[in-house]
Amino acid sequence: MIQRFEACVEAVLMTQDPDNFVTERLEQVEVDLAGIPNDRHYGLLRPADVRQKFYPRGKLIANRRQLSIVSVEECEMIAEQLGIERVLPEWLGANVLISGYARLTMLPLGARLLLGSGAGLICEGENKPCSGPAIVIAKECRNPSLQAKFVRAAANRRGIVCSVECPGAIRRGDTLMLAVEES
Amino acid sequence: MIQRFEACVEAVLMTQDPDNFVTERLEQVEVDLAGIPNDRHYGLLRPADVRQKFYPRGKLIANRRQLSIVSVEECEMIAEQLGIERVLPEWLGANVLISGYARLTMLPLGARLLLGSGAGLICEGENKPCSGPAIVIAKECRNPSLQAKFVRAAANRRGIVCSVECPGAIRRGDTLMLAVEES
Repeated sequence: MIQRFEACVEAVLMTQDPDNFVTERLEQVEVDLAGIPNDRHYGLLRPADVRQKFYPRGKLIANRRQLSIVSVEECEMIAEQLGIERVLPEWLGANVLISGYARLTMLPLGARLLLGSGAGLICEGENKPCSGPAIVIAKECRNPSLQAKFVRAAANRRGIVCSVECPGAIRRGDTLMLAVEES
Repeated sequence: MIQRFEACVEAVLMTQDPDNFVTERLEQVEVDLAGIPNDRHYGLLRPADVRQKFYPRGKLIANRRQLSIVSVEECEMIAEQLGIERVLPEWLGANVLISGYARLTMLPLGARLLLGSGAGLICEGENKPCSGPAIVIAKECRNPSLQAKFVRAAANRRGIVCSVECPGAIRRGDTLMLAVEES
């Protein structure tokens, strides 16, 4: 049985700068089988890092972390936990911000995210918090103490990573269908 | 936490014939990011079929069904259920036959299958029984009544499909490490 949920694409973002993961807003992107062309996470292959413990670090493996997606609701939860006004998707390096499906981070592996254009993404699981956004948030909020608090505040709220199953456009304002197969 | 299990690669198989899914044994294959070169399931893309209900039939999508893997133990269970001597991996169109991890079909989505060569596969879930092998088995056993019984006998025993995460060799006699991440 397939359960379906509707959400809204609030923002689409990317960055071309390999040295800065902070993303910038666009009206839309066209994804292909390797992600968002020119984005820093674009590619069929990526070097294995600390998250892929099964392989020697730096070994080229299939890139299943092509896009990262966060929810408005979880960003608000992180902000509340940190005692700050807001957490922007840019600071998290997110590529898509959605609303209407609050517990995005809990979306199961293999769930589909389907766009009106025909584009389809596969949920590759939770995006584990790392220290990059912590430094950005501490700097943006001019509060160095936030850096140490971020990873804990963002645990289970950091959204998901996805890979592209079917090429097409992702547009701001789109309806996003989340499809979860239950056995 | 990561749970690890060891299994043995009993056979490696493929077929180049697009009109016949029955596979043939080899000593080894070299997989790349699209599967087993020249195998009928090889490709970064595949046309969506009845299993990918989210897309129009025939639409080109990412190929997550590059290899199929079955276990000796589950093949024996199917044979017993059908009342026949044996079910060969060739008849199921399998690419890899393993032993030592009996309930392969239950392996969770996202589990890793790691070979001594450095090659790594990702479990893309259960391979749902279809009627192709049923016809082959009925013919091989000269017993037409088996055709109608196969799908039920093979339910939850048909093995898994995988995609390649890291290129390398899969050799007969290899030790296969199954790694399951538990949250």
